[in-house]
Amino acid sequence: MTSLQTPIFKQITVIGPGLIGSSILRRIQKDHTIAEYTIAVDIDPQVCNRVKELKIANEVSSDPIQAIQNADCVILAIPVGAMQEVAKKIIPHMKKRAILTDTGSTKASVIAAITPFLTNDISFIPAHPMAGTEFSGPDAGFESLFENRWCLITPTSVTDRKSIHKIEQFWQTMGANTRILSIKHHDKICAIVSHLPHLLAFTICNTADNLADETRSEVLDYAASGFRDFTRIAASDPIMWKDIFLNNREAILEMLARFMEDAQAMAKAIRWQDENYIVKTIKKGRKIRKSLINNKQA
Amino acid sequence: MTSLQTPIFKQITVIGPGLIGSSILRRIQKDHTIAEYTIAVDIDPQVCNRVKELKIANEVSSDPIQAIQNADCVILAIPVGAMQEVAKKIIPHMKKRAILTDTGSTKASVIAAITPFLTNDISFIPAHPMAGTEFSGPDAGFESLFENRWCLITPTSVTDRKSIHKIEQFWQTMGANTRILSIKHHDKICAIVSHLPHLLAFTICNTADNLADETRSEVLDYAASGFRDFTRIAASDPIMWKDIFLNNREAILEMLARFMEDAQAMAKAIRWQDENYIVKTIKKGRKIRKSLINNKQA
Repeated sequence: MTSLQTPIFKQITVIGPGLIGSSILRRIQKDHTIAEYTIAVDIDPQVCNRVKELKIANEVSSDPIQAIQNADCVILAIPVGAMQEVAKKIIPHMKKRAILTDTGSTKASVIAAITPFLTNDISFIPAHPMAGTEFSGPDAGFESLFENRWCLITPTSVTDRKSIHKIEQFWQTMGANTRILSIKHHDKICAIVSHLPHLLAFTICNTADNLADETRSEVLDYAASGFRDFTRIAASDPIMWKDIFLNNREAILEMLARFMEDAQAMAKAIRWQDENYIVKTIKKGRKIRKSLINNKQA
Repeated sequence: MTSLQTPIFKQITVIGPGLIGSSILRRIQKDHTIAEYTIAVDIDPQVCNRVKELKIANEVSSDPIQAIQNADCVILAIPVGAMQEVAKKIIPHMKKRAILTDTGSTKASVIAAITPFLTNDISFIPAHPMAGTEFSGPDAGFESLFENRWCLITPTSVTDRKSIHKIEQFWQTMGANTRILSIKHHDKICAIVSHLPHLLAFTICNTADNLADETRSEVLDYAASGFRDFTRIAASDPIMWKDIFLNNREAILEMLARFMEDAQAMAKAIRWQDENYIVKTIKKGRKIRKSLINNKQA
């Protein structure tokens, strides 16, 4: 399918064709109003071969410098801990007036990592599509991943309006709803709605694993629906999440501390049989859940 | 549909036709090898009317004493905190050699609540079908709820083998896999696989709710997949869960304490950037999840 409409970008290079990156590539392939030409870059030759087999990019390369030279838009879809190294390597070779954007789950740390290497010629638009599954790699992506999900954009003090608009347009064409947010606010919100739940999920799996061998095997046998939900997100990529925890450290530690206070209060209420407190707490949880359903996020 | 096979029970009375109770009734209605006649009992006239409308029982009553007099099997599918009062009321009026069983999520407390009222004529078989959703009430049930789920049976020192076998048969006909477990072991396992996850889910919703008003509304707007999973189980019935927390107090407090230690260790690793510890913890979580998938529980 070709379109008469001028695409948003002539060439997009996606660095890291994993769950997020390959979903972007798949969507572009179905919608020619986004980009005319795509290049996927990965340092792992196995990933490159798989992306070639999947035929989701016009070109696949293991050399980021060569792959970004003609790109109008470079998307960093890599773990947040790898942003600095890649940005340092590619920025000097980017086209003048090209846009650099990312899909990282933490924004203050990614901006701090990339900013020192930026030049006046490059527009850097930090972005975070709030979508994902517990699976990773190029096979995990799908073109509708961003449909009706939020993409949060956190401009820096030097980000130009025109480039922001282009990235908003890009994500809207991907199916996402976009919103501009302050960097700090983004990191706090994500700490509570995404990072803390993942931390709790990893932790409860460890608590179960730390039980005596006999009990542990039975944990697996009898895992009821509650535990299964928690362990779904615990299957997420270790390196990606290690990076997120270290890169949104302050906000995550703050939210975890608040959570621990609330959990201790609940423990105390259980120990002292404070029925009112327990019921009030459960009802509050229900209320939040119902708001989620009303907001059509559930 | 009538069957030539003799049903397991002539008459079953289900006290509490909620999510669990109404699912039992629906299943019996589809499978005439389970019971010939069913009575649903609830103290709430609205629930009784709804069960009549749904036509899932042969008879609906708001009088437990009348409803259990001819039952070969009485199933208590009520919150664990209500077991004592109902057992005390009905046991003296039960048929000789009838079976009394329950579906409560905690076993030591239910057994302690019911045992004082038992007579030698009544066989009490404590059971716990590990199935459910976050919804409650007679409309929430469905006949396949127990399909391929575990039903744990925790006999007491006086439970007779013949009655255990009948209840095993009953649950197997419901589609469940049954297993005999010690009371204490049951309560520990359920504390980690079900009760603690629910406690954490209720708590994180409260932590989010306790944030400033502005942030809270955005928590709802941007709730990512992690938080949504947590809040699904947080929509569960408040009275049922208050009862569970109070009735499995020791095991839940022990598991929560273990969990808090592990969460603190994770917080420390994040603060001090102990990458090895973080990655090890996440990988352990993944391993548990994969075992779950292999066990076909996910």
